[in-house]
Amino acid sequence: MRQHTADSTAPEPMNFGSDNAYGALPEVLAAVMENQTGTQPPYGNDAVTKRLTDVFRKLFEREVAVFPVLTGTAANALALASIVLPHGAVLCHEEAHILTSECGAPEFFAGGARLVGMAGDDGKLTPQGLAATLSNMDRGNVHAVQPHAVSISQASELGTAYSLAELKAIGDWSHGEGLKLHMDGARFANAMAHLKCPPADATWKCGVDVLCFGASKAGAMAAEAVVFFNPADARDFEYRRKRTGHLVSKMRLVSAQLEAIVKDNLWLTAATHANGLATRIAAGIARTPGIRIAAPVETNMVFAEMPVETAARAKSGGAIFYEWGAPQNGRVLTRLATSFATPDAHVARLIELLND
Amino acid sequence: MRQHTADSTAPEPMNFGSDNAYGALPEVLAAVMENQTGTQPPYGNDAVTKRLTDVFRKLFEREVAVFPVLTGTAANALALASIVLPHGAVLCHEEAHILTSECGAPEFFAGGARLVGMAGDDGKLTPQGLAATLSNMDRGNVHAVQPHAVSISQASELGTAYSLAELKAIGDWSHGEGLKLHMDGARFANAMAHLKCPPADATWKCGVDVLCFGASKAGAMAAEAVVFFNPADARDFEYRRKRTGHLVSKMRLVSAQLEAIVKDNLWLTAATHANGLATRIAAGIARTPGIRIAAPVETNMVFAEMPVETAARAKSGGAIFYEWGAPQNGRVLTRLATSFATPDAHVARLIELLND
Amino acid sequence: MRQHTADSTAPEPMNFGSDNAYGALPEVLAAVMENQTGTQPPYGNDAVTKRLTDVFRKLFEREVAVFPVLTGTAANALALASIVLPHGAVLCHEEAHILTSECGAPEFFAGGARLVGMAGDDGKLTPQGLAATLSNMDRGNVHAVQPHAVSISQASELGTAYSLAELKAIGDWSHGEGLKLHMDGARFANAMAHLKCPPADATWKCGVDVLCFGASKAGAMAAEAVVFFNPADARDFEYRRKRTGHLVSKMRLVSAQLEAIVKDNLWLTAATHANGLATRIAAGIARTPGIRIAAPVETNMVFAEMPVETAARAKSGGAIFYEWGAPQNGRVLTRLATSFATPDAHVARLIELLND
Amino acid sequence: MRQHTADSTAPEPMNFGSDNAYGALPEVLAAVMENQTGTQPPYGNDAVTKRLTDVFRKLFEREVAVFPVLTGTAANALALASIVLPHGAVLCHEEAHILTSECGAPEFFAGGARLVGMAGDDGKLTPQGLAATLSNMDRGNVHAVQPHAVSISQASELGTAYSLAELKAIGDWSHGEGLKLHMDGARFANAMAHLKCPPADATWKCGVDVLCFGASKAGAMAAEAVVFFNPADARDFEYRRKRTGHLVSKMRLVSAQLEAIVKDNLWLTAATHANGLATRIAAGIARTPGIRIAAPVETNMVFAEMPVETAARAKSGGAIFYEWGAPQNGRVLTRLATSFATPDAHVARLIELLND
Repeated sequence: MRQHTADSTAPEPMNFGSDNAYGALPEVLAAVMENQTGTQPPYGNDAVTKRLTDVFRKLFEREVAVFPVLTGTAANALALASIVLPHGAVLCHEEAHILTSECGAPEFFAGGARLVGMAGDDGKLTPQGLAATLSNMDRGNVHAVQPHAVSISQASELGTAYSLAELKAIGDWSHGEGLKLHMDGARFANAMAHLKCPPADATWKCGVDVLCFGASKAGAMAAEAVVFFNPADARDFEYRRKRTGHLVSKMRLVSAQLEAIVKDNLWLTAATHANGLATRIAAGIARTPGIRIAAPVETNMVFAEMPVETAARAKSGGAIFYEWGAPQNGRVLTRLATSFATPDAHVARLIELLND
Repeated sequence: MRQHTADSTAPEPMNFGSDNAYGALPEVLAAVMENQTGTQPPYGNDAVTKRLTDVFRKLFEREVAVFPVLTGTAANALALASIVLPHGAVLCHEEAHILTSECGAPEFFAGGARLVGMAGDDGKLTPQGLAATLSNMDRGNVHAVQPHAVSISQASELGTAYSLAELKAIGDWSHGEGLKLHMDGARFANAMAHLKCPPADATWKCGVDVLCFGASKAGAMAAEAVVFFNPADARDFEYRRKRTGHLVSKMRLVSAQLEAIVKDNLWLTAATHANGLATRIAAGIARTPGIRIAAPVETNMVFAEMPVETAARAKSGGAIFYEWGAPQNGRVLTRLATSFATPDAHVARLIELLND
Repeated sequence: MRQHTADSTAPEPMNFGSDNAYGALPEVLAAVMENQTGTQPPYGNDAVTKRLTDVFRKLFEREVAVFPVLTGTAANALALASIVLPHGAVLCHEEAHILTSECGAPEFFAGGARLVGMAGDDGKLTPQGLAATLSNMDRGNVHAVQPHAVSISQASELGTAYSLAELKAIGDWSHGEGLKLHMDGARFANAMAHLKCPPADATWKCGVDVLCFGASKAGAMAAEAVVFFNPADARDFEYRRKRTGHLVSKMRLVSAQLEAIVKDNLWLTAATHANGLATRIAAGIARTPGIRIAAPVETNMVFAEMPVETAARAKSGGAIFYEWGAPQNGRVLTRLATSFATPDAHVARLIELLND
Repeated sequence: MRQHTADSTAPEPMNFGSDNAYGALPEVLAAVMENQTGTQPPYGNDAVTKRLTDVFRKLFEREVAVFPVLTGTAANALALASIVLPHGAVLCHEEAHILTSECGAPEFFAGGARLVGMAGDDGKLTPQGLAATLSNMDRGNVHAVQPHAVSISQASELGTAYSLAELKAIGDWSHGEGLKLHMDGARFANAMAHLKCPPADATWKCGVDVLCFGASKAGAMAAEAVVFFNPADARDFEYRRKRTGHLVSKMRLVSAQLEAIVKDNLWLTAATHANGLATRIAAGIARTPGIRIAAPVETNMVFAEMPVETAARAKSGGAIFYEWGAPQNGRVLTRLATSFATPDAHVARLIELLND
């Protein structure tokens, strides 16, 4: 459980709290400005939104059905509601954002469906873990909710990324069990910057049925794309989006953000920057006595367990970051998140503070 | 997880499968017959239903708001929806019927609320276990579902009964944390036959806010009573019941069952009979080599772990019972349930079969 | 709008209030008694329930998927939820029970779908009326709820019955528009007693996709059957029924009622009796000065508009009946409902009172 | 019913289709740009969002609870869900946006509640019309959905504005009946530019309980504010907003739009411009033979009924606008909407085209 608080009165704030703490990339802002002139039909009937299908078709090298929305919670909840019936269940990690941080949105949008969390090393699921959970769900028994989908976060909530082999194994297992596979890609950019392969290879070629392509954390203002690789699953999506209030009138301003961030691989460049800073932090504290890196640093988040005094020192030095759970035995698990816009100097100063 | 199958082709069936396998008590049937003559206003405006409040007021020695419904799932889901908001959560045992066996009814009726299961010895919750779970729920954090209620099953799904001290401890803890306390009393009769105290002592005096008083398993045809000890919680209950299709037109036939089963303590007498048979089974196999009684036998269910051969032998001898989960290492956990109508001879024969 | 009140303090009550005011037919009670002995697997896995498919297959001369439930509201709401998506709408009469008298159950069970009522002579819809309503619904426009089904009540809430030609016209129109056709058959028995044709002719042969076969008003204690003529529509029905609390543990006692009432055409015989009494009432007051029969009397209800004094006189004479809406200009619309058990003498006395 | 199509291939498009067709005001864009630099806590814990309460407190001259969201549908559905229980109903105009154009969002967010539409001259409700509708709703009858709120659109969907006297009458009537009053203010700016009084006078002083203050149509990118005048009604709003995916991570970018548009009465200035253009259009075609102004032109929309040839001529001349319903007898009802950014020249040319 995270604490959504930070000492915001500290001098010279250096924000490692959330990759949402910064504004947006200049290219994204420019695209919004450019596309806001003139008139366009509202509610997604504009030219930019119409181009999006092509943008994502090229990005993923196949037919897709793509829908812009404004928040990651909306993206996930709408995507899951499209592949899970009200009497269904979604298997996910016990730390999954959909389970811990969306206040029941997936359950609500899916008509009362259930999220079934399970443990998993480094924030990741495995076919073995999934199989064990599934064996406890009475398939076909009308008294029990029925497994309909698996959801994975790429990158995971612990900042790790599933490898292609891990993805393929989960995709194969899910489809073998007749389950759909959803990928929460709030940090998909960071994961892909780590994997360094074509997006197709890490999504539908591994069995992902629907991806929530996160752009907000990657540098957009407020934009996510729900990408269905099996367009039949999107049959009712437009109605679902409308009746949950997520069909924006001036949709072109959202679509323009998505178009801009995909263009020239901006999303990947920005995520590569953020990932690099996290790697630098990890390297800078790897040998610091008393600090333990709690999960492999593969994307833009460092989970570091440290003495409460160390954390306090960093905070009074101006660093903002989350603590994951309450301190235990004088030690606390911290999350240090970098973003597309984190200054290099902040990283250097953070390392100093933690090493003091 | 239970298997809802049994070898029903066996000769001379002796049914230890479910306490729902039998019909109804003669007194209940007689009351239905008697009350079905003549005319009465429909939809609960009849004389019998109107008397129910008084019946339960006397039974529980205080003001109550009481509502007859037809199934335990309806009773639980409607009761929980009355005390939990859509963004709320219910803390319960991981084996709770509401979690494992109601196919998401509580979540649906409560507008998408969440059930949060936890382990607990002998099928029971403790303040310690509840507190540990609660400490992982971000109270006041808008990103997280909020704890609104605790639900306990009395008797528990493992056939154990909470003692008065255990109940009081949970009630105090729940109210101390600002949570409502719901009691799933599908086998309330069996628990009370064990506790042998006034129903008031084991419910509202311990902090129970709403009780689902089970009559079906106690010998009714199909009748449960939702009993609110804090009538304000029942504010919208009549609308909830109607809009879920649980307001029966000939309600007097349901209410008559409840009136009959409460009268002269019929519910307790019947449960005492069932409990006695379970005790006898437990005693009869307590020293049988290879059989292990898995939970204290306090009501009408014996959970016995035994070799798969023993279970198979009992089945071919005509015994019907559930297996709890898949066999492991040649052993299987069985549930042997007795009822108000289980013949003594069946119990004797079952013991013989298991001891063969 | 009806007033659910009646002067129940009158001497010698003669109940014309609701066809739910009486108990049950002796044959139904006998079947329940007979089937309550011995044990059976619970939750619909019993022998009686298993026989039901065959019972209704024969009754309707084709494959069906049939599910017993306990109330008409549950039957209608579950049936509609099976054929209407959450962004869908059901076209119905503005007096339809699903719209006026189920407190939003269909909307709730269908995840927020909408009921769209319209006027129609004698409580009935026509293809013309439906087409006019449909022309105001933006099909394919994501901003508007989408028409998914038509619902008709047979008999209608005004006691009239659709003729075969009327049914066929609505069925053809509905299917031509890609809409499913639901029939609320709370008084299906009364309608069929009027039509005097094979049930197949008045249901699926006219395009009805799902029928709520009402037994409670026909003489059962509490039993309705949801009959899908296109079993694919019932795909998720068992889960829906369970998660709304309508899967009764001792289901055999419900199924036994349905089996008994279908057997030897008991349902038709009973409805014929009730219809005959209504016809007699209508005949008895047809020439009474000041009384106007407001709708063709084809089943078991007489809608008679009369001076408030006449209605008051009948009430003080012991007659119980509903008033439909508030009195206007000294006149009130009354509903006089007969049932399978209404005594002949009551009918005679009612006619006298109204003619006094 | 409107047709959401327009001949977008026309030369030199002059967009009178929707007030959403334009981008945003320069001041709004500047505020977004300015506030996107640096870091801020996400999810509404930023400084701009925190200032909003004060901004709206001053605007409305009283304590308020104010919540930014991104779309009008979200604002309306969340506001209504806050004041209507699942078994409740909202009385509204039959042309209300919440009823015709939100695809069931209010019903869904309110757990299955019902919208009850009624006719009303010039798109407006009256206490008389409301009372007539209410008299047909069985208050206190558990079989019927219960009236909980009234919703009015200010400006109305026909471009008219309720006068202060009209508002007061509806507010008094609503509160007299125990109903909450919701105002859909998608075009609140246009209405206030017409009324020319302090916003307080036209809202809470008339009995409005919750206002959806529209900024998108007034010149924001995507921003609306839900303003509760009775903060107790907002008790669960933050949870509702989160679990419907409407809590934006970079909320400051939304709040900045609201702050900017309220500042220096920008919203009113912009709306005054738009209203003025509509008045000019109306004046320009008032005497045109064959054209009939269908509703008083009080805000930024002209509803003009005209020969289909006239409409076609305007369209081929480059004008974009909606047709309201299908043509009848060679005439069609058109909606000509102006916005904060509509060029004067377009208005002049439109008048020419219609007068040709």
